[in-house]
Amino acid sequence: MAFDRLPARRAGIDTYQQPVAYLRADSAVCLAEGFEAQAQIELIVRGRHVLAILHHVRSDWLRRDEIALSEAAWALLGAAEGEDVQVRHPPQLASLAYLRGKVHGTRFDDTALHALMADVSQGRVSDIHLASFVTVCAGGGLDLAETVALTRAMVDVGERIDWGVAPVMDKHCIGGLPGNRTTLLVVPIVAACGAVMPKTSSRAITSAAGTADAMETLAPIGLDVAAMRRVVEREGGCIVGGSAAHISPADDMLIHVERPLNLDSEGLLVASILSKKVGAGAQRVLIDLPVGPQTKVRTASAAEALSRSLVAVGAEFGLQVCAVLSDGFQPVGRGIGPALEAFDVMAVLERRPDAPTDLRDRALVLAGLLLEMAGKAAPGAGLVLARSVLDDGRALAKFIAICEAQGGMRVPPRAAHTQVLCAPVAGRATAIDTRLAARAAKLAGAPRDPSAGAVMHVRVGERIVAGQPLFTLHAGSVGALQYALGFLRAQPPVVHLAVEP
Amino acid sequence: MAFDRLPARRAGIDTYQQPVAYLRADSAVCLAEGFEAQAQIELIVRGRHVLAILHHVRSDWLRRDEIALSEAAWALLGAAEGEDVQVRHPPQLASLAYLRGKVHGTRFDDTALHALMADVSQGRVSDIHLASFVTVCAGGGLDLAETVALTRAMVDVGERIDWGVAPVMDKHCIGGLPGNRTTLLVVPIVAACGAVMPKTSSRAITSAAGTADAMETLAPIGLDVAAMRRVVEREGGCIVGGSAAHISPADDMLIHVERPLNLDSEGLLVASILSKKVGAGAQRVLIDLPVGPQTKVRTASAAEALSRSLVAVGAEFGLQVCAVLSDGFQPVGRGIGPALEAFDVMAVLERRPDAPTDLRDRALVLAGLLLEMAGKAAPGAGLVLARSVLDDGRALAKFIAICEAQGGMRVPPRAAHTQVLCAPVAGRATAIDTRLAARAAKLAGAPRDPSAGAVMHVRVGERIVAGQPLFTLHAGSVGALQYALGFLRAQPPVVHLAVEP
Repeated sequence: MAFDRLPARRAGIDTYQQPVAYLRADSAVCLAEGFEAQAQIELIVRGRHVLAILHHVRSDWLRRDEIALSEAAWALLGAAEGEDVQVRHPPQLASLAYLRGKVHGTRFDDTALHALMADVSQGRVSDIHLASFVTVCAGGGLDLAETVALTRAMVDVGERIDWGVAPVMDKHCIGGLPGNRTTLLVVPIVAACGAVMPKTSSRAITSAAGTADAMETLAPIGLDVAAMRRVVEREGGCIVGGSAAHISPADDMLIHVERPLNLDSEGLLVASILSKKVGAGAQRVLIDLPVGPQTKVRTASAAEALSRSLVAVGAEFGLQVCAVLSDGFQPVGRGIGPALEAFDVMAVLERRPDAPTDLRDRALVLAGLLLEMAGKAAPGAGLVLARSVLDDGRALAKFIAICEAQGGMRVPPRAAHTQVLCAPVAGRATAIDTRLAARAAKLAGAPRDPSAGAVMHVRVGERIVAGQPLFTLHAGSVGALQYALGFLRAQPPVVHLAVEP
Repeated sequence: MAFDRLPARRAGIDTYQQPVAYLRADSAVCLAEGFEAQAQIELIVRGRHVLAILHHVRSDWLRRDEIALSEAAWALLGAAEGEDVQVRHPPQLASLAYLRGKVHGTRFDDTALHALMADVSQGRVSDIHLASFVTVCAGGGLDLAETVALTRAMVDVGERIDWGVAPVMDKHCIGGLPGNRTTLLVVPIVAACGAVMPKTSSRAITSAAGTADAMETLAPIGLDVAAMRRVVEREGGCIVGGSAAHISPADDMLIHVERPLNLDSEGLLVASILSKKVGAGAQRVLIDLPVGPQTKVRTASAAEALSRSLVAVGAEFGLQVCAVLSDGFQPVGRGIGPALEAFDVMAVLERRPDAPTDLRDRALVLAGLLLEMAGKAAPGAGLVLARSVLDDGRALAKFIAICEAQGGMRVPPRAAHTQVLCAPVAGRATAIDTRLAARAAKLAGAPRDPSAGAVMHVRVGERIVAGQPLFTLHAGSVGALQYALGFLRAQPPVVHLAVEP
């Protein structure tokens, strides 16, 4: 009786990271195994195991003798259309006993966290167990030793890259700020000075553009570790995407529940950031901590406590960490969206007179610090060196060389449709709602449509006359433009204007 | 732009209690609102609000301008085919601040738990937040005052029935044991002695039969509170199903994550049980606590600690609670499955010589204690009174009267197909795997097919000869019978036999 093996069908349903399997409630396997709707089941194809949530189909789009898979289940199993999927009750997870122990007051040790992160990284732990784990880690739930153990466990269950050189430089920005694409400037400046900086960046998850999305409009980013290594050996730096998934896979699973739970866990945040840096082979890391009313860290004192923890845990892994607080009150540069941010970056590299000075200044500060950390500049001399490398065109030449090494430089796309939004009255710009600006950019199509987004024309503090352009929406279709405009009409203003007497 | 209102379609997908909405990823509302797959969205139909998980459809079974709903979403919204569903971002839940506070060390008070249970009962709290709540309540997470406050909050957000008489008797069995259908005997015995016992029972969730399933094979159980009241006024007792959902709706939502999390929380368990009893208008409650290797409470000491907590919290609500430990080592009676358990009950009521004595004995002990608690028998005299009421036919007459009052008594269905399973060798029965027996009954079709299940022919301790019948499977189809038999062949034996020298 092979009722537990059914040919696979792609359901065409996207359930984000949660694998879902669809079976008829009256299928032999559901009757035989007693699988209820919303139960966890294990799917097996050619030795690959995936834990999925079961949804019962009660209509005719699925036959009794087949199984349909959501996009996540399909991708994780690597199934082919019609291939047999074995379905069974999931094994009992021994690691969950450690979670229960922690809930009942036992501290986590290396063994416990290693077992838990191994199961988490394999997708064997359900969302509600992940939520339970995040809850016990929240607040002061993890002490320094547990944070170190968690970081180590996250590193151990992922891949770890050894670049065979020292020092390997890296940077990270906590929380994100629209337009803050300093990485695309920092990497070529640092690499042009002879330091090694193999940068892996992520795509946007909730924002209008990630560093990977912006870079992709200028060069290919889908490089594996071997290809990255060739670029870094030749140019000293790279800016690629994606392979982070193999570096700290447990962290990728946890983020999925951390975001909606919205519990502050310093230990989890530190382990998340540092496990990725250790796994990526970094040795000296600069962390940019924007502090503002809508950023992840909202007060200077919270940012300073987090910095101390990052430095202390990093030291356990031989990682030199330096954290700097930065202004998080308004978008950086002008563009919000992959290509629009890439244009800002190119304007700075090409030293064009209209290049956004705030983006340039932030990048120079970070690059200067990294050059000092790398021993390429004396303490206090990094900023001057960084500026000279940018001003004399070496940074631009290095960036072009990196793009060519990654597969060839290209010109970012331009959106077919734009709409300028103007000030209804005169006044002084007192605030820019960075979240609303990012949302408008997303409604216009970013980051899926790399040409879409918004371009800001004003900065906080400026005097604005009535009818002056505040920002321009860019979209690939009239429909997308209309959605973004319709949304904005129902919202408070993106740019707050105080009418002056 | 009414892009946020889409005509509803029933997806025919059963996601148990989790409402799921299906939208095309390229629908106007997803593009405009930025709804990602697996996001929480709020659905509104005629003033009814339901929180659902969004799944993106990427194939043609759904149009861009319509929304499909899972069975749970469909039922909760009460939507009609083609009716407009409004879709929007869910409101920020103020109550989650209390959960975050508790995670960070603040004790729950009445205000916090009331706000949380109100949102939980309305389905506004996601599974991962429910999991976080259960985690902070686990172990010693709730002290006595918090347990009382949680019970009160669960009662307050549900309906509360006032029977207008005193004392109102009730019983509850913690954890469940296959075949333990004492309620169908206890209610008529107690009611026949003049006590008032309006019993609301649940259907099976993971077992082969709930009390409601067994009762339904003998009489209608779908009575609302007004109909229950008429039955109780006439007969003193009733055994109905379903309306518990309105009595402690918050508890129903929590159970959904408590089961897979498998964290022991005495506070949650006590609040769960007592909120339903207080809401149902009970005043004196007898709790049956089976203790065995596969029951919910597995040691006598754990059972005693739980009893003390139940008594103390019950007292805060004027509820007199008495808990008794019972033998949980093997199934009760012979039948496992709705109709098969009903036959056992009828055999006891009709005083047939082959009636299962263990079921009879357990019911008499519980009924005797309830009669003493109700003041219908002197302390120590309840058992004798209960036995006389059963033996002289008054319990049978009362049961028939209750069935008639509930809508008419009927004869439970008989399965068309049976298969006897016999002992492969001679030996003494040392154990019966109650979970495996229940699973075999479910594979044969119980409880969906009320005639299906298993009938046990032996008890622990009996000497068995080779070829002697151990149990009989009952099924509505040859296919279902084959599934159950095929499953059993791959499992350890249901009845463990020790070969004797």
